[in-house]
Amino acid sequence: MSGRLYVVGIGPGSPDMMTPQAHAALQDAERIYGYRTYLELLAPHFPEKQLIASDMRQELQRCEEALADANEGHRVAVVCSGDAGVYGMASPVLELAPAYPEVDVEVVCGVTAALAGAAVLGAPLAHDFCVVSLSDLLTPWPVIEKRLKAAAWADLCLCLYNPRSHHRPEHLARACRILQEASMPPERPCGVVKNIGRDEQEAHCMALSKLETYEADMFTTVFIGNSETRIVGGCLVTPRGYRS
Amino acid sequence: MSGRLYVVGIGPGSPDMMTPQAHAALQDAERIYGYRTYLELLAPHFPEKQLIASDMRQELQRCEEALADANEGHRVAVVCSGDAGVYGMASPVLELAPAYPEVDVEVVCGVTAALAGAAVLGAPLAHDFCVVSLSDLLTPWPVIEKRLKAAAWADLCLCLYNPRSHHRPEHLARACRILQEASMPPERPCGVVKNIGRDEQEAHCMALSKLETYEADMFTTVFIGNSETRIVGGCLVTPRGYRS
Repeated sequence: MSGRLYVVGIGPGSPDMMTPQAHAALQDAERIYGYRTYLELLAPHFPEKQLIASDMRQELQRCEEALADANEGHRVAVVCSGDAGVYGMASPVLELAPAYPEVDVEVVCGVTAALAGAAVLGAPLAHDFCVVSLSDLLTPWPVIEKRLKAAAWADLCLCLYNPRSHHRPEHLARACRILQEASMPPERPCGVVKNIGRDEQEAHCMALSKLETYEADMFTTVFIGNSETRIVGGCLVTPRGYRS
Repeated sequence: MSGRLYVVGIGPGSPDMMTPQAHAALQDAERIYGYRTYLELLAPHFPEKQLIASDMRQELQRCEEALADANEGHRVAVVCSGDAGVYGMASPVLELAPAYPEVDVEVVCGVTAALAGAAVLGAPLAHDFCVVSLSDLLTPWPVIEKRLKAAAWADLCLCLYNPRSHHRPEHLARACRILQEASMPPERPCGVVKNIGRDEQEAHCMALSKLETYEADMFTTVFIGNSETRIVGGCLVTPRGYRS
């Protein structure tokens, strides 16, 4: 009998941003695997489910356990915050899945922080945009630097994930300097959102030069406008096209 | 008395990909403004609502009408497919809003085609990525070309919106040639999804050289991998990092 593994993006955290499809997948699962913090968010809404928590950096082990469980004919879910496919668990699960031939994997998408944070600020990603993580755990820093330069050169709106962690407090400042060296002006409108969709949500607009010294944390998403982005009525707004 | 305008991303089309937040906003609205096709998708689920349909390219007029309506103290919604902020109505509404001081605008995010299509194919956008529209209605073609080159140069995963329309049948082929000229190899794994989340949904993986002659339509979303992207068990999968 074949098993099923749902890789589910639960959105930014609040249940009203989780899709009915994601909710149905979690209801269908016998057990839910995930990072401790996300399972704590889910626990009150799925009181009858068995939740199997693991810590950060145990992602591959978590995938293997969930795949082995499903391979015995069970229906299980692996959860991620935001979307399952954006820096999420869909990729490692699908890479490991061929070793578990009895498992049907279904990826269930969700609202990622780029979209949820943009809505809080206004419409900063309303034209072509780029999503870049500043974490160099799995990506060499020169690759990240190249991507920032490319975004600046091509006038792409930019959304930065993981702007800061304990081990890399200076990455956001470095990114801001790289963008300015790539001739992005210091007055370029930017914005930050902390704790998207949670009670402690906080959002600010500021110039790129101010962003350089902003104290981001692990729960901050950063937005950098393109050459047409403006602050309009307190919102960060990128036009849908070029006026000229 | 102040009015309220919700700009609502309804997701790709199927109700199980619309967030509860979006559903609640539409329930709260007295009237829903939108492009005819999207309102037809909503009509069965909101039978008691007044739906005010307009055609494509009437976006600014639609925003003005909805803002004027809300400015009289009403609660109204403007809907977009996918997310409200990704090539959606949030940007024009917020640009026009300062002329309607009695209106509170709330942007309600949704699942955009980049996320929903990626989940259908596997996990093509699991590392840093770029979303580019091939429509040159509001963007000069040289700007689009520059963005494609930047994505190739910086090894960003790429998601293309609007790969084809009546007036620009050849844009996808041109984009594929530009990427290859920017030294992206012809065997680079790519994927397409048509009619995401609808009954007629269709998805295929193919090499970049095949994508060049693929017959995309207005309802197709295109995915192009980075240098690490592989086809794994029939899915298009980008690893979350660089192995070396």
